[in-house]
Amino acid sequence: MAYELYYWPTIQGRGEFVRLALAEAGANYVDVARRGANGVPKMRKLMTSGRLSMPPYAPPFLKSGDLVVSHVANILLYLGGRHGLAPKAEAAKHWLHGLQLTVTDFVSEVHDTHHPLGPTFYYEQQRAAAKRRTDEFWKLRVPKYLGYFEGILKRSGGPFVTGRKLTYVDLSLFQLIEGLRYAFPKRMRRFEKNVPRLLVLRDRVTARPRIKAYLASDKRIAFNEHGIFRRYKALDR
Amino acid sequence: MAYELYYWPTIQGRGEFVRLALAEAGANYVDVARRGANGVPKMRKLMTSGRLSMPPYAPPFLKSGDLVVSHVANILLYLGGRHGLAPKAEAAKHWLHGLQLTVTDFVSEVHDTHHPLGPTFYYEQQRAAAKRRTDEFWKLRVPKYLGYFEGILKRSGGPFVTGRKLTYVDLSLFQLIEGLRYAFPKRMRRFEKNVPRLLVLRDRVTARPRIKAYLASDKRIAFNEHGIFRRYKALDR
Repeated sequence: MAYELYYWPTIQGRGEFVRLALAEAGANYVDVARRGANGVPKMRKLMTSGRLSMPPYAPPFLKSGDLVVSHVANILLYLGGRHGLAPKAEAAKHWLHGLQLTVTDFVSEVHDTHHPLGPTFYYEQQRAAAKRRTDEFWKLRVPKYLGYFEGILKRSGGPFVTGRKLTYVDLSLFQLIEGLRYAFPKRMRRFEKNVPRLLVLRDRVTARPRIKAYLASDKRIAFNEHGIFRRYKALDR
Repeated sequence: MAYELYYWPTIQGRGEFVRLALAEAGANYVDVARRGANGVPKMRKLMTSGRLSMPPYAPPFLKSGDLVVSHVANILLYLGGRHGLAPKAEAAKHWLHGLQLTVTDFVSEVHDTHHPLGPTFYYEQQRAAAKRRTDEFWKLRVPKYLGYFEGILKRSGGPFVTGRKLTYVDLSLFQLIEGLRYAFPKRMRRFEKNVPRLLVLRDRVTARPRIKAYLASDKRIAFNEHGIFRRYKALDR
């Protein structure tokens, strides 16, 4: 039976981390909200109708038969075990999940660069705060987060976080690099030299046949100014 | 063998969600950074020495023999399975983990009320932005998050999120109520009537013998203005 992925149809957003894992797994899935004109109403209805005994708080969530799994890291924990995208040993499994939760925290800070006053104002209503937060983000947070992952790759010997076998975390790190390159081309160009191992990982992921096919397909939504990674000239210097 | 919890010694912070679960489980644990004068250096050293083959990004993390688990929700996933603080069925286990990850997101938004420009500035350097964000937080985000959990309790029949048996998520919800009451006494007093089931849950958790003993002990650090929940007069109205 096909998985059903529920996520906003016009952005990569948080759903993209799941789409990449589904692509690499070669899994059969329906991107429900992108199917037909009433995809989004269908998604909203499922969340609020009371039909689900364990309703999720927000997209993305994945339906696998009767099972509903919400939150990116939780979905990847579930998929990782089923599709060989994670080690099986308990310690390594929890460690990988912890890495993914660190990715989650970083993604949230990326979002906050353009929405420091929260998701209820438009970017245009918080430009000054966004500028201040973005400067700090590049000065202190990017080096700390990406430096941590670079250190993990140094330790593992690369090209991936656990060594030679790809995991779902590697797919997410690929997405972080792509996203930063899109949103902050100038800043990222200057920063990249500090994380050579992450760049190798990024290239290795891009070269994988299923990922390559996915990225070239219309399943891959283009980056735009409604998702997590947004290109605003004023924030890139 | 005793668990080792690694977290900052002077705040409840994110570590408190773990401490509450350890207390309710009656688990034997050492709060490493609170033990002796060099607790914090010991924690830092463990993180950076290269001794751990799977190093965490940040506290809190839990050591259980050779296993190291980081991030609150990941630690609770681990402890929940071992101490009967979570259901055993796969669907319910993933659902509970999803609920905890929603708590994580909410905690992050609580933190952002006083730090909208990020963790690298002091509150005093971002008062105006904090005020704006806090207003939105109470207008839109608190009703959405707590309304969701109230709905879950309505569905389960209460007093807890899965029904009559307590889980680690219930302990976390107790902590959220306590924290909001501490940080925003005026706003919370006005809001509480909207979430009667959460208040019942809070009272039921408080009455549990091990939690009661924990809260009365010096293991429970008092709320203060260095943690997640901070009482700033300017942000409470």
